Amino acid sequence: MEIHVLRLGHRLPRDERITTHVALVSRAFGAGEITYSGQHDSSLESSVSGIVNNWGGTFRISYNKNFVSVLKEYKKKGFTVIHLTMYAIPLPEIERKIKMKKKVLVVVGAERVPKEVYELADFNIAVTSQPHSEVAALAIVLDRLQKGKELERGFDKKFRGKIKLRPNERGKSIEKTA
Amino acid sequence: MEIHVLRLGHRLPRDERITTHVALVSRAFGAGEITYSGQHDSSLESSVSGIVNNWGGTFRISYNKNFVSVLKEYKKKGFTVIHLTMYAIPLPEIERKIKMKKKVLVVVGAERVPKEVYELADFNIAVTSQPHSEVAALAIVLDRLQKGKELERGFDKKFRGKIKLRPNERGKSIEKTA
Repeated sequence: MEIHVLRLGHRLPRDERITTHVALVSRAFGAGEITYSGQHDSSLESSVSGIVNNWGGTFRISYNKNFVSVLKEYKKKGFTVIHLTMYAIPLPEIERKIKMKKKVLVVVGAERVPKEVYELADFNIAVTSQPHSEVAALAIVLDRLQKGKELERGFDKKFRGKIKLRPNERGKSIEKTA
Repeated sequence: MEIHVLRLGHRLPRDERITTHVALVSRAFGAGEITYSGQHDSSLESSVSGIVNNWGGTFRISYNKNFVSVLKEYKKKGFTVIHLTMYAIPLPEIERKIKMKKKVLVVVGAERVPKEVYELADFNIAVTSQPHSEVAALAIVLDRLQKGKELERGFDKKFRGKIKLRPNERGKSIEKTA
């Protein structure tokens, strides 16, 4: 499954770390790419690129002010658009319909998401009907889309980074290559 | 299963929103309580209490500078201590051992976690071996501990808040009681 992520409404300085977490979860959980809208943020881009450079993989981050055109573009390319919002139908009731898709765009919003997004989405999905975190909602959906495979030891091989961790029960085993 | 959360090393202003997300994920995913250490933060406490007041439930937040004593206290009370760290053994390899526990304390760290935590924990667990987000790691572990039940429509009933959402496919249905 090809998974891309769209982060809406990035605000500075408020969302600096949250959007970084959204991007790093996307990468660690196997998404290929994140696009963000809202305010442009070079420091976000360079911290994500820094992680990719050290920890490996081909994850990309890019900015696009016009999220509606991003959504339409993805739909044209055959991606199923999944918008995460606590107002929507609970994930377990929709899971089965999205698991078989080949290409998925997961959309995570900030404070207020325009109505257009609810309408352009193929599925609006709630990860609980309580307020919590777009970082958590994204992680849960990426986990379900991939049936937990992203958590397995073998999944880590795809990154081939300069830094690699060797799972350790009580401490830290870090391998670094120049 | 009774689940409590311990957040280590809260730093101001850096962790303001991340720790808020950690607390709200704990609540929304069914934990009963969060304790945080690091810097004391009244604004964190009041924003979490504000959510509980409006959205319901009995979730509590409290501060304790001495996280080692918190850990020891929980162990004495029969809680299994699970520490989340990317350095540890992947979750799928340990999942089976933690699912049957009755009382669990999930520990999430900030930048640098003292060695003592790795040693006091009953299990150190990695939610991927890549850097991403303690918010995501926490959500995934709470999801696994409860076998996804926290995402189901029925789970929401336990909150009985002044604000309640009625799952809606394309918009927002909000019920408010005074």
